[in-house]
Amino acid sequence: MACGCSRELIYRPGLRHYYRPASNLPKEYNLNLTHVDYQRDQAIAVICLNQPDSGNTLSRQMALDLLSAASEAQNDPQVRAVVFSAHGPMFSFGGDLKEFRRFGTNSEQLVTVADRWHEAQHCLLTMPKPVVVGVNGIAAGGGVPMTLVGDIVLVDETARYRLAYTAAGLSPDGGSTWLLPRLIGLRRTQELIFENRELSAIEAVEWGLATRTVPQGTALKTAIALAHTFAKGPTQAFASARQMLHASFGNDFMTQTALETREIGANMTGRDGQEGLEAFINKRAPVFSGSQ
Amino acid sequence: MACGCSRELIYRPGLRHYYRPASNLPKEYNLNLTHVDYQRDQAIAVICLNQPDSGNTLSRQMALDLLSAASEAQNDPQVRAVVFSAHGPMFSFGGDLKEFRRFGTNSEQLVTVADRWHEAQHCLLTMPKPVVVGVNGIAAGGGVPMTLVGDIVLVDETARYRLAYTAAGLSPDGGSTWLLPRLIGLRRTQELIFENRELSAIEAVEWGLATRTVPQGTALKTAIALAHTFAKGPTQAFASARQMLHASFGNDFMTQTALETREIGANMTGRDGQEGLEAFINKRAPVFSGSQ
Amino acid sequence: MACGCSRELIYRPGLRHYYRPASNLPKEYNLNLTHVDYQRDQAIAVICLNQPDSGNTLSRQMALDLLSAASEAQNDPQVRAVVFSAHGPMFSFGGDLKEFRRFGTNSEQLVTVADRWHEAQHCLLTMPKPVVVGVNGIAAGGGVPMTLVGDIVLVDETARYRLAYTAAGLSPDGGSTWLLPRLIGLRRTQELIFENRELSAIEAVEWGLATRTVPQGTALKTAIALAHTFAKGPTQAFASARQMLHASFGNDFMTQTALETREIGANMTGRDGQEGLEAFINKRAPVFSGSQ
Repeated sequence: MACGCSRELIYRPGLRHYYRPASNLPKEYNLNLTHVDYQRDQAIAVICLNQPDSGNTLSRQMALDLLSAASEAQNDPQVRAVVFSAHGPMFSFGGDLKEFRRFGTNSEQLVTVADRWHEAQHCLLTMPKPVVVGVNGIAAGGGVPMTLVGDIVLVDETARYRLAYTAAGLSPDGGSTWLLPRLIGLRRTQELIFENRELSAIEAVEWGLATRTVPQGTALKTAIALAHTFAKGPTQAFASARQMLHASFGNDFMTQTALETREIGANMTGRDGQEGLEAFINKRAPVFSGSQ
Repeated sequence: MACGCSRELIYRPGLRHYYRPASNLPKEYNLNLTHVDYQRDQAIAVICLNQPDSGNTLSRQMALDLLSAASEAQNDPQVRAVVFSAHGPMFSFGGDLKEFRRFGTNSEQLVTVADRWHEAQHCLLTMPKPVVVGVNGIAAGGGVPMTLVGDIVLVDETARYRLAYTAAGLSPDGGSTWLLPRLIGLRRTQELIFENRELSAIEAVEWGLATRTVPQGTALKTAIALAHTFAKGPTQAFASARQMLHASFGNDFMTQTALETREIGANMTGRDGQEGLEAFINKRAPVFSGSQ
Repeated sequence: MACGCSRELIYRPGLRHYYRPASNLPKEYNLNLTHVDYQRDQAIAVICLNQPDSGNTLSRQMALDLLSAASEAQNDPQVRAVVFSAHGPMFSFGGDLKEFRRFGTNSEQLVTVADRWHEAQHCLLTMPKPVVVGVNGIAAGGGVPMTLVGDIVLVDETARYRLAYTAAGLSPDGGSTWLLPRLIGLRRTQELIFENRELSAIEAVEWGLATRTVPQGTALKTAIALAHTFAKGPTQAFASARQMLHASFGNDFMTQTALETREIGANMTGRDGQEGLEAFINKRAPVFSGSQ
């Protein structure tokens, strides 16, 4: 399966539209997912981990379903914002260690699971549409980096985080070692990885893993409401911002500002930019279409 | 116009003096600025946005004047520290959207404004002299990245920040997407860009946009006093620090420490380093000349 | 002398074992150190700056001894965790400015000291074993970056930090300009470098220089206890984490997650990963061997 968003976002002059919908998906494309719940609600897609009885653990099937769901959300032109959350009382306990144990000492199957999951993570992190994460409960192990791929991360005030990899003799994955240093700095990343310190929801906000807390039981609902707001926003400008933030640490200042110039030039002369200017000058609320 | 500081600072062995004063400026070089106030005060230059009646918005002329002023400050060998602030009650409301609307759907003029402004930002960020920013009031849109290019950023306790690009259908520029992730991390950068959250002066300090608050109405005055202090400092060592911090995220550890070795070697054997050692050992205050 | 850890950690496919013990050290290798105290205590190495009467300043001999000690800790296969601290009431006052003054205006000797010290810093930062730093007292100048090379940094509640380079006409070294922006962001790094602001232990923790404070006089003792805990941990997984965090800012997301996949694949199919899975499933504490 092609995610369609696996190209890296380092600036290359003259190449603006990185995120092409994969054209090789049949129109009657059927998600047929068992481990992830995918719903389209008007202009948003809602992706929920859907194995609550087993703690929404990341198994082979969960990884495949996540990649399918993320790709569908990216490729559906009707979708202008995405929610990523989970059903049940917890977010995810991370890797399905019972399944991984059955893999034995041949790493091939584990590598396949990790690769597919990393494609799904990358797709959620870079698709040209805002992603709101609703952390409905405990996130452990690989559940932690799953919570990190959004632009806005809403966390249930009772949720907790624990990056328990080294407690099980494992090293972090899921993009933990890429995301955490850019979100919370090296020192706190080390504390999470080497000491498996548990974080409360409030600490997660203070440190920069999450954007803000929400009342108990409201993470999914609040994330959906916010995504509907984003879906009425300037989709192309949001896409530009996602692309540029993703590329930021790989670019020097002049390269990054050249990218900024190109993107603001395209956005300002596009439909939503023109609408934004008109609305600003006439002191009315803008009505964005999301088209270029 | 050549800024003279547009070269990137990634370490290249054997190449120490990146920042050469542009030699092609005539001696009688006349700034002749209308939108920016440029003053030299002993060994410091004071650059102030100077269109207070229109909110110090960034128009084409403002961008050109900023680049002229930044280049002059960089190239004047008498200048050993720079203040960047604004006249009037606000810092800057960002882009001159009325002018940009007149540009219509041809992005060429906007691109020119953005390019010149980005050169000015880069010049302020990388010139081999300390830059103190005084944020005298509200900074919105492109006014926000303008506040970020200094080594020390003093903010009026009543000032506020709002990165309002996406509210107008636009994507951020001015180096926002390069500077903010390095100052405050990805999560808070996303909150500013996607939700246009307003920040108070105190929050700006807590997050790392500004260094500290100053009493209402004193940002420019305090910035000038601090710049005079820096102008009596070890200019070459300050220049080394600026260069190395700018290059930091693009270098691996051994490359960065090779740069540190080269710079401390040059500084310690230079006049200010020798003076610093003498003063330290003799327990007196050093008198730095700023020369090599 | 070869540190054995000077290779950069950017991901290269198919190359997992970066950290080979240097095979060219004779078995009877004698550290014979005068300025650093090196002790092996069961499965940990304890490295202490050992010139307390002169403030543990960084002289030529101190740099050479630090590199010897760091290399020995890295290369001794019995060592599974390392403590880095100092004897006496302070951690380190930084460079031995009296010695540096004797070097005069020929930078060659200073460059040699800086290069050896930077190799030692790199070795502590990247060796495939956890490093716990115990900051027992004041860290000034080059003493500050010395405190930063660990995974966990414990700081005496009475300790203070001051990065005094520019006060002596010098630019920072020791990896300050690489480490600080990644730990505390650019703005606070600038404040430390340009204004030589003094930080308390509590501020150092809040900012992200240190992990947590410990009661007065207990930094070394607590660091030793924690290192013994790490020495019973999954050494290979810790090594993977160190390698990946070191490489993080130089890699894009897909490259970094490819590295994560490779490392978790190797760790899960290795002895400690298999033990970790068994222990997790059988709800018992794991017993890690540290071997692959």
